[in-house]
Order: sequence, then C-alpha cells, then structure tokens
Amino acid sequence: MKFADFIKEASLKNRSRIILALDLSALPGNPLFEELEEKAKEVLNATAPYICAVKINMQLLLPLGLYSGVKRIIDETHSKGLPIIMDCKLSDVGHTNKWAAKHYFNAGFDAMIVNPLVGWSGGLESVFEVAEEYDGRGVILLVYTSHKAAPESYELEVKDPVDGRFKPLFEIFARRALEWNASGVIVGGTYPDKVRYIHSILEGKVPIYSPGIGAQGGVIDECLKAGSSFFIIGRSIYLSSNPGEAARRFRDLSWTINETS
Amino acid sequence: MKFADFIKEASLKNRSRIILALDLSALPGNPLFEELEEKAKEVLNATAPYICAVKINMQLLLPLGLYSGVKRIIDETHSKGLPIIMDCKLSDVGHTNKWAAKHYFNAGFDAMIVNPLVGWSGGLESVFEVAEEYDGRGVILLVYTSHKAAPESYELEVKDPVDGRFKPLFEIFARRALEWNASGVIVGGTYPDKVRYIHSILEGKVPIYSPGIGAQGGVIDECLKAGSSFFIIGRSIYLSSNPGEAARRFRDLSWTINETS
Repeated sequence: MKFADFIKEASLKNRSRIILALDLSALPGNPLFEELEEKAKEVLNATAPYICAVKINMQLLLPLGLYSGVKRIIDETHSKGLPIIMDCKLSDVGHTNKWAAKHYFNAGFDAMIVNPLVGWSGGLESVFEVAEEYDGRGVILLVYTSHKAAPESYELEVKDPVDGRFKPLFEIFARRALEWNASGVIVGGTYPDKVRYIHSILEGKVPIYSPGIGAQGGVIDECLKAGSSFFIIGRSIYLSSNPGEAARRFRDLSWTINETS
Repeated sequence: MKFADFIKEASLKNRSRIILALDLSALPGNPLFEELEEKAKEVLNATAPYICAVKINMQLLLPLGLYSGVKRIIDETHSKGLPIIMDCKLSDVGHTNKWAAKHYFNAGFDAMIVNPLVGWSGGLESVFEVAEEYDGRGVILLVYTSHKAAPESYELEVKDPVDGRFKPLFEIFARRALEWNASGVIVGGTYPDKVRYIHSILEGKVPIYSPGIGAQGGVIDECLKAGSSFFIIGRSIYLSSNPGEAARRFRDLSWTINETS
C-alpha cells in the first residue's frame, strides 16, 4: 500500500491524527540505555489504539541501530497496522541521499522526512526515485520547523527565481512540495499562522504534519482549524505517567472536525 | 585535544589536506553488505599515511550502527593518530540535535557537520554546547554543497536582517559560521568561485572543507588557490584499484602551497 493511503487508513481506523514520536533518550552508562528498545515498545503498545503512525528520530536510531533494534520497532509498529516514519531530515547530496533512502525503506520505513534546501537535481531527486521504486513510500518536506529560531531562517525574505517576487523562504519550500509531489510537509504547530498560510499555498493537495504539540507549546485545536492534518507528539506522551491515556486524550482533541479528510 | 588542533597536527604530520570519505555502500543481500566494515578498514589502513582525517556518512552508519561497527572504525582511525568526522548534516530542532551530538561525541567522533539553516536558539545552540562539554569537539557548517542543484537554494537572493541588504543565502550561512565560531565550513569543490568568495568573508578565521573532488568533478589545485584548507574525497579513492596510491596522489596535489597554514 502507498504511504499516503496507509496513513489515511490508519487515521480513519483509530479516529486519530496523532503521530507518536518515540524520542526516548539515554547515553551508554545510564540504566535506561539498555532498556530503550523495551521502553519504546511499551509506549508503542500502550498508545497503538490511539495513534495513526509512529515517528523515529536520531534519539533511537543512534543507540539501537537501523537493522537491529529499530528494525524490530518497525516490525512491531506494522503488526499494529500502523505506518512508521523516519525523521532523518536528510540534507545531503544525491549519492548519500539515495543510499540513506535505500537503507531506511529497505528496513521497512514507510516514509522519510527530508530537507528541501538541498534542491532537486543531484539533491532530493534520488530520494523521490527510490521512494517510487519501493512502491510509493512517502517523502515529507521540512517546510517550517517548530523551534524558537525558526523565523531566523524560514522567514528570510527571498527573491523567487520563478516570478522575481520577494517571499519568505518557507514559501519557496512549500511550492517545492507541490512541484515535487511530496507526501506531506512539516510545519511547526508552534506557528499556527504559518500553518494557515502554508495550507493556502498547498491548496489542500499536500497534508501538513505539525510537530511541537505539547512540550513545545503547540495547541491541537488551533492548528486543526489552521489546516494541520497530523500532529506529532513525543514527550507529552512518552514522559507521561500513563502514555496510553495521554495519547487517547490527544487523539480525542485531534478528531473533532474534518473527520473524513 | 581540541578538534581544530587535532586535524592541524595530523595534516602537518602526514603533509596532507585529504579527508577520506568512507562511503562504501551496499544493501542487505548484497555480499558486500557483510563485508562493509572489513572493506572500510582495508581502505583506512591503506590510506592512513596520506590523509589527515576520516569522514563517515549514512552509507556506513546505517548498516554498521554507531555503537558497533562505526565505533570500531572510530577506534581504528584514532589508533592511526587521525581525527574522524561525522557527516550527519544535522538539521533538526534543539532537543534532537542535542541527543545526536551526545551520541556522536560519546561514540568518539571528533567533529560533526551540521546544517546552519536551523539557526541558533533552540536549533544549533545545543550542538555547540555539547561540543564544548566534550572538550572542544568540532562543529562544521554546511555553507555551499557540491551538487548540481546547489545554486537553486544556496544562491537564493536574501534580505539580510542584520543590514537590510540583499545577498545570497550562502553568505548568511558563512556569516553564521563566523558569529557562532564554527570549526569549519563545507563549500563544494565543484564551485571554486564560491570557495574564493566565502574565503574572503571568513577572513581566514574558519577553514574551508571542500567535498566533490574527483568523482564529482572538483579539482584540488583550483580550490587550493581559492582558499580551501581540506579536501574530502571518497569514490576516487575507495573505488580505485589501489586506494593507497590514489590517496598518495591526491595528498601530493594537496600539499603544494601554504604548507604551514
């Protein structure tokens, strides 16, 4: 199944727009380090009925390894009928991007998050090609991050080479998502006005994934109205004393409008 | 020893400005997959007298794992008296960047390559902090990539919020390297005119690392005159029938002028 259909199906089934970010973190020497995989699976099992996908980042990839612990988490996620996304924010040149995409998709990831700064030719072209070779895996572009310094770069006023007009850098990136037929874009839930603006550029053709909900301050209701389709939540779920209950609460908040989109 | 001193010492000792990019690549199922670590060590051993550092990218990190195969390559590199750089081109928000930096430095990497797009506050600030905690590890900023689409993004004309003047995006990034006191910048050796321009911005305070030499078309002599301090070479060495000899040849080309810088 293509990634776009897979996440939509999981979202409808669980009536949820919540993507669980499994960012549990520990260094060697800390007792948690040896338990990272087990703890991650515990959170996954407790939250699976209330989420529509899982997202993995460097916090787990580096200690667990792609073809060992992470592979087992991928398989566990799939056994719940859920897709899993690698948040590698790839920003390398074509040769490296191609191999990263091959490894992530080969290990079972359904989608990857990449940085559109690198451009198309000799940049992200190879990632989109590999995604197609793997029967329509997803490629999600980072268009506006959730952190404090995001405006420092993403709102730089830039001359668009296409029409010669000045616009913010994130708008160039959002247009690349349309042009390249990306499976989604990341827009920080901490900037709902940006969600609204980017949603209007994307004409409803590319879903918006919003991180930064909870610990970073983003609010689901506001982003939902502004046009976010999915919400990426990590610490507010896995650091909760009851991750299943926390996920269920966020799920309910995420499923109040646009139930069929 | 601080990264900046470590690479300078190794460079002077081996009279080389060549950084070996160990980008050997294979998927599971290919016989090379099981031999990636061994082959990487063979290339390292053959080339060690002619290089000043090693660089690891996703091609080895994903199949070998940070704390297993990559850790052993880090130790082997250090046993040759050489520093080793992780080319992760990190472009995430602070929480993830911090943990990536902790893992890479904890495993023994001497420096990391990061994407300055993410900005300082809640972005790369945490990486520079962790680098200091680990006694002066290096942080190298990606300022102008080596691939064909590089101008598509890096030359976007941008209004500098500091002085209100329009300049190319890469110039904003180069000024961040000065401001943040980065250990180096990446500027593609395929664009020697950009090396020259960025070298003038950096006032000799931040060394330029140039990938794209050899397979991608960059030429050492031209970049050396333009201001590159180090040359990152992968395929033209590790795919050669005699990697040691190939590295020695590139080394000789890299040590013709500015021997003491």
